[in-house]
Amino acid sequence: MSAPIDFYFDFSSPYGYLASEKIEALAERHRRPVEWHPILLGVVFRETGAVPLTEVPLKGGYSRRDMARSAKFHGIERFRMPSSFPIATQAPARIVLWLKARDPTLATVAVHALYRAFFCDDADISKPDTAAAIAATCGADATAVRAAIDDPVVKDALKSENAQAITAGVFGSPFIIVDGEPFWGVDRLDQVDRWLATGGW
Amino acid sequence: MSAPIDFYFDFSSPYGYLASEKIEALAERHRRPVEWHPILLGVVFRETGAVPLTEVPLKGGYSRRDMARSAKFHGIERFRMPSSFPIATQAPARIVLWLKARDPTLATVAVHALYRAFFCDDADISKPDTAAAIAATCGADATAVRAAIDDPVVKDALKSENAQAITAGVFGSPFIIVDGEPFWGVDRLDQVDRWLATGGW
Repeated sequence: MSAPIDFYFDFSSPYGYLASEKIEALAERHRRPVEWHPILLGVVFRETGAVPLTEVPLKGGYSRRDMARSAKFHGIERFRMPSSFPIATQAPARIVLWLKARDPTLATVAVHALYRAFFCDDADISKPDTAAAIAATCGADATAVRAAIDDPVVKDALKSENAQAITAGVFGSPFIIVDGEPFWGVDRLDQVDRWLATGGW
Repeated sequence: MSAPIDFYFDFSSPYGYLASEKIEALAERHRRPVEWHPILLGVVFRETGAVPLTEVPLKGGYSRRDMARSAKFHGIERFRMPSSFPIATQAPARIVLWLKARDPTLATVAVHALYRAFFCDDADISKPDTAAAIAATCGADATAVRAAIDDPVVKDALKSENAQAITAGVFGSPFIIVDGEPFWGVDRLDQVDRWLATGGW
């Protein structure tokens, strides 16, 4: 395995969810690991003046249609817009950062479990107890993972992750960086694939 | 041939240019004609509060990189960002609307000539004389096409086109509507292709 594929995402991002379901198979084809970077789009959006896609006139209605269509296009059958959207994602993001430092494999399992809970089962993962319970079903220590969400050290780790993402030029979700080359959106996975195959063009 | 593919675009849109180079071959595979709808993104953006992509912090730098990369990804070798960008596009849009009403085949030729003049040869097609001269090289009557740009009837036709686009939900460029289904962006051409092949999903 060589350098990882950096995968930045917000747990409230539908296109981030779709890409999270595809990135590992893509990375595996090129013998690359995936490094998960949970971030808060709200913090990033302060840099760009962006607002959540679904709240923009015209674009909002289109995007909801496109999200469902894109899910099927990418072969992801389980997708539905959550009843609360968008949500604050500090809880799941902190859980993943805390797990990454302890058990990266479990962190990956938790990324998928949390994303699917929100975008398949309509679980409100903004709630610390809900998010921690989902992580516990993946094998995380229930008490420790719940405590991590309120741990000042973990809070700082998320702040650092957001700041590092902005420094790296991240302004959306999913945002994928391969050997310094940035790709924004699930619709750039085909370019990521070719970039990894050819080393760029 | 059955119902046309409606292709909405602004002549100042790089992704619109890229899609304009691909849409006819795609349409031909499905035995569909392309109907060109030149619009003014500035008018549409008043509905959504959007600003030109290249002027957004972080996103601007990325988008310039992505445009050049996407051009090559789609096999379009001739592309460079114009020295003046974005530009006002009333002149080329009015020319195309005027030609469409008289000679649709010539209108198609002019769409490509005007887009390539801007995105390959750095011609300032915002200038009426420049845009008219390009249309004349395609076979349009030089005097008549230059006069059309200032014709109140043609001006009103462009206003109607913009209003109709907003009514149809258009908020960006390229914007493609197939049998009522909307697709935004050159990165949705693969979905358009599958939609036409399968009749939707």
